Amino acid sequence: MCELLGMSANVPTDIRFSFAALARRGGETGPHADGWGIGFYDGRTSRAFHEPEPSARSELAKFLRNNPIKSRIVIAHVRKANRGRVSLENTHPFSRELWGRRWTFAHNGQLKGVKRLPLAGFAPVGSTDSEHAFCWMMGRLQARFQALPKPSALDRAVADLSAELHALGVFNMLLSDSRTLYAHCGKRLCYLTRCAPFGTATLIDEDWRVDFSQETTEQDVVTVIATQALTRDECWTDLARGDVLTLRDGAIRLLKPGAAAAATRLISPAAC
Amino acid sequence: MCELLGMSANVPTDIRFSFAALARRGGETGPHADGWGIGFYDGRTSRAFHEPEPSARSELAKFLRNNPIKSRIVIAHVRKANRGRVSLENTHPFSRELWGRRWTFAHNGQLKGVKRLPLAGFAPVGSTDSEHAFCWMMGRLQARFQALPKPSALDRAVADLSAELHALGVFNMLLSDSRTLYAHCGKRLCYLTRCAPFGTATLIDEDWRVDFSQETTEQDVVTVIATQALTRDECWTDLARGDVLTLRDGAIRLLKPGAAAAATRLISPAAC
Repeated sequence: MCELLGMSANVPTDIRFSFAALARRGGETGPHADGWGIGFYDGRTSRAFHEPEPSARSELAKFLRNNPIKSRIVIAHVRKANRGRVSLENTHPFSRELWGRRWTFAHNGQLKGVKRLPLAGFAPVGSTDSEHAFCWMMGRLQARFQALPKPSALDRAVADLSAELHALGVFNMLLSDSRTLYAHCGKRLCYLTRCAPFGTATLIDEDWRVDFSQETTEQDVVTVIATQALTRDECWTDLARGDVLTLRDGAIRLLKPGAAAAATRLISPAAC
Repeated sequence: MCELLGMSANVPTDIRFSFAALARRGGETGPHADGWGIGFYDGRTSRAFHEPEPSARSELAKFLRNNPIKSRIVIAHVRKANRGRVSLENTHPFSRELWGRRWTFAHNGQLKGVKRLPLAGFAPVGSTDSEHAFCWMMGRLQARFQALPKPSALDRAVADLSAELHALGVFNMLLSDSRTLYAHCGKRLCYLTRCAPFGTATLIDEDWRVDFSQETTEQDVVTVIATQALTRDECWTDLARGDVLTLRDGAIRLLKPGAAAAATRLISPAAC
């Protein structure tokens, strides 16, 4: 297994607090020591950092902790290899260009027989099931739309493709086209939204406490999604198997499996 | 204008010495202060670092100076913007996946009317002429070969496409498919090969001197290619306009414009 971390916000936001917890799970408070990566969107592209080594002992991860990169969409991953050797080629998140935008994908879980899915236009560089699944999704999207579709049409297409992969095994996934952060829950994902009035939070994996009211403005909305809760004093909401979330500017929309597009539902931040 | 730096070696090699000179030209000893990037190959993929800010004052460039990443193929670029605003999207080197390998491209010069060249399969994320040229090359290669061709066939195809772009203006370029480093001289590029017996070298842009005999083994072969010489006490060879070099494991082959593939010539390291 691996762990995922994603963020969607309506203003460029510093993810160091959440990433600090994930990074420690890469070989210290968690067993995911076979590589790590993080991609920060900036316009239609992203800057990404990858290493096929444990994040908990990484000088580069430490650098990112000391030098914030603010972004509105972030996808990060720490890896515990099951399929595919430990190498840079097999280190998530993976990325491809489609319709003049950089797409980013990270996955945890196993997908039985995924490599039998035919590819077109995109090919894996490494040997993971995950990258094969990503390339298959990209090829199917390219075949379905001539150019970048409206977000609502893309939402439905991503949900449909995710459902096909979900049928093959465990498909916990984060994906972005630079506009939207998509999340599919195969088995385990949870999220929370931080917005005014802001409170404080303390990490589970280390003794770091932040008072968000000191770091934000009243208009800020930030949603964080992760395999497991990252803080011990906030209310994380679990997703159900098969759920797809779309996150834009921190706002969450839930697509239930099999439901029509009209059945999507905007989620208000939990008060608990 | 911008400046380019490339390296091809037969063993994973530390490029910090050469990159230190290039990085200073990004806003200190040179005017190329509009962004910088560097990609280090590892197998079929590369890890790349980009910033739309001056490399001479970059904490990330300083980090890379203190934390070596050894690689057999490296492509780096410092930018002085002419076409396309200063942004991450417009920061070289650009990369795309084709035939299951990550390709990397960096360019300096201007190409008149390049955006009229039709694209297929690959689209620019940013607004530079350079990325359009790269996407056009990738689309043409994809159309010409079903799968990754032998290096000799790819060499000729890259030379042909480079000649077409050369006709539009100034096309100084570095390109790699993870096996070969290609260089095209539009106006200005020079190179040198370091191999046994190794000597010493001193940077032009700062007071850093290296004794390569202390850093290498007798079998090491390292070729460095750059817009302008980086050291003051080594023999750099200028390329002629229209020349294409292919570099594999540090060994250089020269493809003269218009010549048949059989006319390529293996170059011995200069003794001067």
